[in-house]
Amino acid sequence: MVASQNEFSLIERFFSHTGKSPFPVALSQGDDAAVVEVPVGKQLVMSVDTLISGVHFPEQTSAADIAHKSLIVNLSDLAAMAATPAWFLLSITLPKFDEVWLNEFSVSLKATSNQYQVELIGGDTCRGPLSITIQVTGLVDKNKYVDRKGAQLGDLILVTGELGNAALGLAHLQQRVTLPVDLIQPCVKALNRPFPRLELTDFLASYASAAIDLSDGLVGDLRHILDQSQKGAVIRLDSLPVNAWIRSQQIYDFALTGGDDFELCLTVPVQYKAVIDDWNHNNPLCKLTHIGEITDSGYELVSNHKTENLNNWQGYQHFE
Amino acid sequence: MVASQNEFSLIERFFSHTGKSPFPVALSQGDDAAVVEVPVGKQLVMSVDTLISGVHFPEQTSAADIAHKSLIVNLSDLAAMAATPAWFLLSITLPKFDEVWLNEFSVSLKATSNQYQVELIGGDTCRGPLSITIQVTGLVDKNKYVDRKGAQLGDLILVTGELGNAALGLAHLQQRVTLPVDLIQPCVKALNRPFPRLELTDFLASYASAAIDLSDGLVGDLRHILDQSQKGAVIRLDSLPVNAWIRSQQIYDFALTGGDDFELCLTVPVQYKAVIDDWNHNNPLCKLTHIGEITDSGYELVSNHKTENLNNWQGYQHFE
Repeated sequence: MVASQNEFSLIERFFSHTGKSPFPVALSQGDDAAVVEVPVGKQLVMSVDTLISGVHFPEQTSAADIAHKSLIVNLSDLAAMAATPAWFLLSITLPKFDEVWLNEFSVSLKATSNQYQVELIGGDTCRGPLSITIQVTGLVDKNKYVDRKGAQLGDLILVTGELGNAALGLAHLQQRVTLPVDLIQPCVKALNRPFPRLELTDFLASYASAAIDLSDGLVGDLRHILDQSQKGAVIRLDSLPVNAWIRSQQIYDFALTGGDDFELCLTVPVQYKAVIDDWNHNNPLCKLTHIGEITDSGYELVSNHKTENLNNWQGYQHFE
Repeated sequence: MVASQNEFSLIERFFSHTGKSPFPVALSQGDDAAVVEVPVGKQLVMSVDTLISGVHFPEQTSAADIAHKSLIVNLSDLAAMAATPAWFLLSITLPKFDEVWLNEFSVSLKATSNQYQVELIGGDTCRGPLSITIQVTGLVDKNKYVDRKGAQLGDLILVTGELGNAALGLAHLQQRVTLPVDLIQPCVKALNRPFPRLELTDFLASYASAAIDLSDGLVGDLRHILDQSQKGAVIRLDSLPVNAWIRSQQIYDFALTGGDDFELCLTVPVQYKAVIDDWNHNNPLCKLTHIGEITDSGYELVSNHKTENLNNWQGYQHFE
């Protein structure tokens, strides 16, 4: 479906010159479809995600934060595959034509797409309840992608960054928790301004046996790796990278099932232990934390006091 | 964003084995992203379209028709580029988990994707007001795509099929017209069951100087070709391929600005007149009708009685 005359002007006006891909674009926005070039020896890595107002972000979220997050959740999928971002398509549904909102959205989208060198090559605009769908395409050297089914017995389970902050930020905005004052800003930022762990791409491609991005919560997301790899896991509660308040209050659910972290969970053969230590020495802003190991079967959370079976836990359910 | 456990089962259950691409899929649904192979010498042609209940289809439209149309409007974009369909991603937003609806939707999606050999490689499911976003990727031999900017002075303007039937079908459903009984079924079918003109791909690649698919109505869609080619056009009202009732009632607006036809409008150098005649002789189900010519400037509709300036006409406006 082509854009109508007004849509067309709108797209041209707000969404031109958004990002610049290192990979060739033969025909960009403004035709029935975009045309791009794929370098020989590369495979395409493709994902799509929709963010709906009131479901995936609070209704009061700013246009700038919505634009950033819509793109980032897709780039995070590429990061989990060890792919390099190339191009994206945007379908945006808006309740009304709001120039101020659109301007704020497009400025933010340009900034984020420039930062990650991913180029907007086409899209669609519709009228309706606010929602944003982005389809992103990345590239990998042939068969160098990392999927969910390669975890092996004894592999270390690692996660990037700190878990649970985004869920705390959401709980704060929804007045479900009373956060310490110094945690409010970083937790709301973790919710609205996540970043894709693309700096880990080469590490993943070289050392990881499996990976997934943490969007729905560690317990549910790691379960996908276990299901597809036909393995089990043990996670140690004390090893989880969480802020001091989560630890002191023992509210680990935010880290285990909270979701929206967009950190990566990866499995790495134990022989690469030294490489992990090197990585952490050189990359203090993308620290890998060893939280457990891949086992033959079962799915257990071990703490000082007890061992819990995680097979009955559920992540955030989109359909209750 | 990965699917939650329930979403994941849902996607697996309803959307596996949907279509089969002639082009290799290395990793399909069920990971952070899909991985596909692009044959050497091909370019990618990519488009995205969202269909919203009550905006792009009447609320009472069946799940089967919604599935069909959601895919077809995207394949129609590929047809207009002379691209061969390869893969698609689906993001579906549903107000509630409705097994009967989902089953009907997925059966129809499978049938249509099988028919056009386009493979579902991934997607996203959300809860919210009913809408369907499909991103489709096709392939063309390098630089053999047809865009909107190549129309030349004197080129013939052609359209496929018959125009205005889908708009009549919508007007009938909305009780804005009283259709002759024998037109009801074909017009409602034109609205709900359009088909992409992919049979024209080789013809387009060989002979067309520009092409667009007719989603918003002939006048507005052809204007995109004129704008991008920096040319004008003359269209003859008497040449428009419309049904006898439109002609007898003189309600040409359905054909000129009605939209939703998903026929193609193309421009072809006059030297290929004999090729067009050959095509029509051999393809009675995809007849090309010569409706006018490309001029230096201006945009005119000529009838027996008068000449109208089409530059002030507006197609369907998504944002009024």
